Amino acid sequence: MNGQSPLRLGILGSGKGSNFVAIADACAAGRINAVPVQVLSDVEDAGILAQARQRNIPARYLSPGKFRTRLDEVAEQTWVASLREAQVELVVLAGFMRVLKIGLLSAFAGKIINIHPSLLPAFPGLEAWRQALDYGVKVAGCTVHFVDAGIDSGPIIGQQTVPVLDGDTAATLHERIQVAEHELYPACVGKLAHRGFCVQGRRVLGLSPRA
Amino acid sequence: MNGQSPLRLGILGSGKGSNFVAIADACAAGRINAVPVQVLSDVEDAGILAQARQRNIPARYLSPGKFRTRLDEVAEQTWVASLREAQVELVVLAGFMRVLKIGLLSAFAGKIINIHPSLLPAFPGLEAWRQALDYGVKVAGCTVHFVDAGIDSGPIIGQQTVPVLDGDTAATLHERIQVAEHELYPACVGKLAHRGFCVQGRRVLGLSPRA
Repeated sequence: MNGQSPLRLGILGSGKGSNFVAIADACAAGRINAVPVQVLSDVEDAGILAQARQRNIPARYLSPGKFRTRLDEVAEQTWVASLREAQVELVVLAGFMRVLKIGLLSAFAGKIINIHPSLLPAFPGLEAWRQALDYGVKVAGCTVHFVDAGIDSGPIIGQQTVPVLDGDTAATLHERIQVAEHELYPACVGKLAHRGFCVQGRRVLGLSPRA
Repeated sequence: MNGQSPLRLGILGSGKGSNFVAIADACAAGRINAVPVQVLSDVEDAGILAQARQRNIPARYLSPGKFRTRLDEVAEQTWVASLREAQVELVVLAGFMRVLKIGLLSAFAGKIINIHPSLLPAFPGLEAWRQALDYGVKVAGCTVHFVDAGIDSGPIIGQQTVPVLDGDTAATLHERIQVAEHELYPACVGKLAHRGFCVQGRRVLGLSPRA
């Protein structure tokens, strides 16, 4: 590592938290210069909360408010306050099933990242692996990107490819992409932890090891 | 090789013909079970014609007719007749700058392929490498696909990736993609020469070595 203090991560998830686990393990093993300081979920019994507690990482359920697909404005301020209280420097979405709105986006502008199971800009939206299989691509993959107000549209931090095989079903392709996700997501967090990147237009530069 | 007769290729190009050269050299070296039997161009002094003649491959300029971006109906029938006369089994577009219309598409249905300098379905259309660079992807590449009536929309035969580097300009990325094209295009022609593939929906199956 480079003597900088570890990047303080706040992780938001709604599911089992396999990407969170990959990142937390990379942090714990010292492979990346980051530390998960808070895990928040909109689902009271989400696996990601249990995974965090097993690792002694502060984990909280917070009410999402009255909407189904996003946090309501009041709830959003609670989430922002919680992340700020923990002095979170980077918000990491890990299977968080709600769209972020202006409250969170402006509070952590340029400091929220997500992972998507396709090589964006191909196949944004739901079940990207199934879209890829149906389209007949020979190379699939995953993308880590900054979050903006669009759907899977922010500047790209990293991408990793996997082959599509003749015998693939949606399930087998999804599984192969998830293995790639668990490598790519910690690697991208590690690159951001070096804090030497810049964004020019849509291009995220300065993430390579020599930068 | 597998004892089958070499797949008879008709190549259509408008430019210098670097992909044609890659394919012709792979055929000549016996790396793929195919043989270029005719090269046609809509540009009288196109480099691809000179490259073909250097290799003693029959090469002809044929008039494209009265339009700028496609062959006209009368011209199209001349092109079809020429390819048929040479008993072409697969029509390979190699930098052919005109959109194919129903005359050629129906005469060689399912037997026309093209290469595109992106990982389709991302970045169809012109200067795909520049689109990719401006979008900020970290992985670019090229795609060999069957040609249908759409733009870069047919079933995908093969894809090959290249990294996008921080220092890339449109020119350096284009050059890297072209190197990949010169590997991918002969490889895909070689797979089709095994004649064991099938198309299910949009998926082209049976191209892997074990098929």
